[in-house]
Amino acid sequence: MPSIKDVARHAGVSTTTVSRVMNNFPNISESTRKKVFDSIRTLDYHPDYIARSLSKKQSLIIGVIIPDCSHMFFSELVKHIEMTAQNNGYKILLCNSLDDKEKELSYINMLKEKRVDGIIMGSHLINTEAYKSIEKPIITFDRCLDDKIPYVGSDNFTGGVLATQHLIDRGCKKLLHISGSLKLTSLANKRSDGFKLTCLENNVSYQIIEYQHTKLTFDYFYDFIEKEVSKFLHTVDGVFCSNDMLAYALYVYCLNNNLTVPEDIKIIGYDNSQFTRILQNPKITTIAQPIQILGELLCSNIIRLIEHDEQAKVYSQIVAVELVQGTTT
Amino acid sequence: MPSIKDVARHAGVSTTTVSRVMNNFPNISESTRKKVFDSIRTLDYHPDYIARSLSKKQSLIIGVIIPDCSHMFFSELVKHIEMTAQNNGYKILLCNSLDDKEKELSYINMLKEKRVDGIIMGSHLINTEAYKSIEKPIITFDRCLDDKIPYVGSDNFTGGVLATQHLIDRGCKKLLHISGSLKLTSLANKRSDGFKLTCLENNVSYQIIEYQHTKLTFDYFYDFIEKEVSKFLHTVDGVFCSNDMLAYALYVYCLNNNLTVPEDIKIIGYDNSQFTRILQNPKITTIAQPIQILGELLCSNIIRLIEHDEQAKVYSQIVAVELVQGTTT
Repeated sequence: MPSIKDVARHAGVSTTTVSRVMNNFPNISESTRKKVFDSIRTLDYHPDYIARSLSKKQSLIIGVIIPDCSHMFFSELVKHIEMTAQNNGYKILLCNSLDDKEKELSYINMLKEKRVDGIIMGSHLINTEAYKSIEKPIITFDRCLDDKIPYVGSDNFTGGVLATQHLIDRGCKKLLHISGSLKLTSLANKRSDGFKLTCLENNVSYQIIEYQHTKLTFDYFYDFIEKEVSKFLHTVDGVFCSNDMLAYALYVYCLNNNLTVPEDIKIIGYDNSQFTRILQNPKITTIAQPIQILGELLCSNIIRLIEHDEQAKVYSQIVAVELVQGTTT
Repeated sequence: MPSIKDVARHAGVSTTTVSRVMNNFPNISESTRKKVFDSIRTLDYHPDYIARSLSKKQSLIIGVIIPDCSHMFFSELVKHIEMTAQNNGYKILLCNSLDDKEKELSYINMLKEKRVDGIIMGSHLINTEAYKSIEKPIITFDRCLDDKIPYVGSDNFTGGVLATQHLIDRGCKKLLHISGSLKLTSLANKRSDGFKLTCLENNVSYQIIEYQHTKLTFDYFYDFIEKEVSKFLHTVDGVFCSNDMLAYALYVYCLNNNLTVPEDIKIIGYDNSQFTRILQNPKITTIAQPIQILGELLCSNIIRLIEHDEQAKVYSQIVAVELVQGTTT
């Protein structure tokens, strides 16, 4: 059975280079990559990863727990996490927690069992205590669990301010904010703080309606609007929606119920996800989260935590958002 | 350190029940699940998965290789694969091959290294030989590599026939089919066979234009239409697009260039992905693939292959598609 030295000799490079190519390090020339892969194929070389990871006490796997990978924001976030992992020799184990606390918990247990080296947590169902008992690297998306657990998120407060100020600048006087559950300790709730403060500072009347956090589909939102929001729609002239899918559902509801957007009601969303960027009619005015940067930071920070054995301090990071003008305001 | 027996005793159930709860088997009552999880928490029980998987020579991980998890068809497919895996005590390792043959190859090598128990292959860049050298369970999506490697796919040929016959029934006389590369050994190419045969049987003139298979974004398709397709659009009255994103890009292109849909040109897509189901204007006429069934079959079949040590024959499966009438035809 061939060794890594045989591959290096065959390709005319060092064993370090072979290792780097195999772990998909960036900054390796295409010609070197090709030489190494040709030699790997010719010699039919394959190291035993489980043995290697046991000797290193590493699985080279990062657990990624999100609510739902078919949600258009998270599908992109996962893509950028995975690309960054791949560039650093890691793979990702994907979990959709959906509506299921036990599923979220079983993934946390897996972390304790050392089957993954660290975890990126983008799902927010379980209380903080369950996380504090983990002694392995963990990083959260948009959630501040504890001083010791770093997070990565976008600047939700400023996002809320930008969205609300934009509606006011467009002439709105009676604002509505539709938000995820404010009881959960999600940093996304700071959008609602930004909304309230901006309304108060501008003497604009406002109200806030909360939906259940774990349902993120168009059908759920349309139904929610019909049942819980529609009775207020004739008393407001601007709505700040906490995500784009909700904003689109509201737009469609208005269209179906003889409310003109943006004349009768102005609508602004949040995310600028793939769906919003592709959609041509309407172009939804929204607050853009830098999804690629968020994914890259989540992944590179968890790798720093894993590889520096928690001695290196990893700080929480907040990334800037920006307004994208569409046709709904 | 507590054992599984301690948990079983504490919860007042059998060790088998504890194991089933931990592996998220279906058909366990909520009260039993709760009792077991409470005991697990109280005793702070966590088995060592790596040791367990080594003793079983199993990692309990399935590799899933797809082109791009942010693509709206694949994001849903992955969700249903992951849910089925979870119900059977497996996790999934996700890889986006994107445009990168080496990345696809590195995942195949990982399979050889036993880091995963089996692989679901939905990416189609590398030639068949690389797959034949794998002696571990593998199942492909929409690709027939070899008699010995089972696949799961939708009935692409019938999909092509349904789409084409629908355009003809709506009065189209000059048809265009825009397809992924027909050089690749993808079963999706059978859509084009169905298209051709139906045109010939109905004495309808036709042409086929191919795009590069690995690019699946709205921007790529819009650009491709502008450069490669637009010159033919005034000579056709019906277009069968090989996916919905392409169909939407074509619709938007027509809108921007004074071609009325469906009056001047009728457009039919393929997939009925989440994007299409949510989009209200237009409702794209399309061929619906049963994404949930495809994901469930891919996952349950790979698990059968893994657990029966390839002694149980797993047959390739083709799942029925159906026409969904929208406003673009």
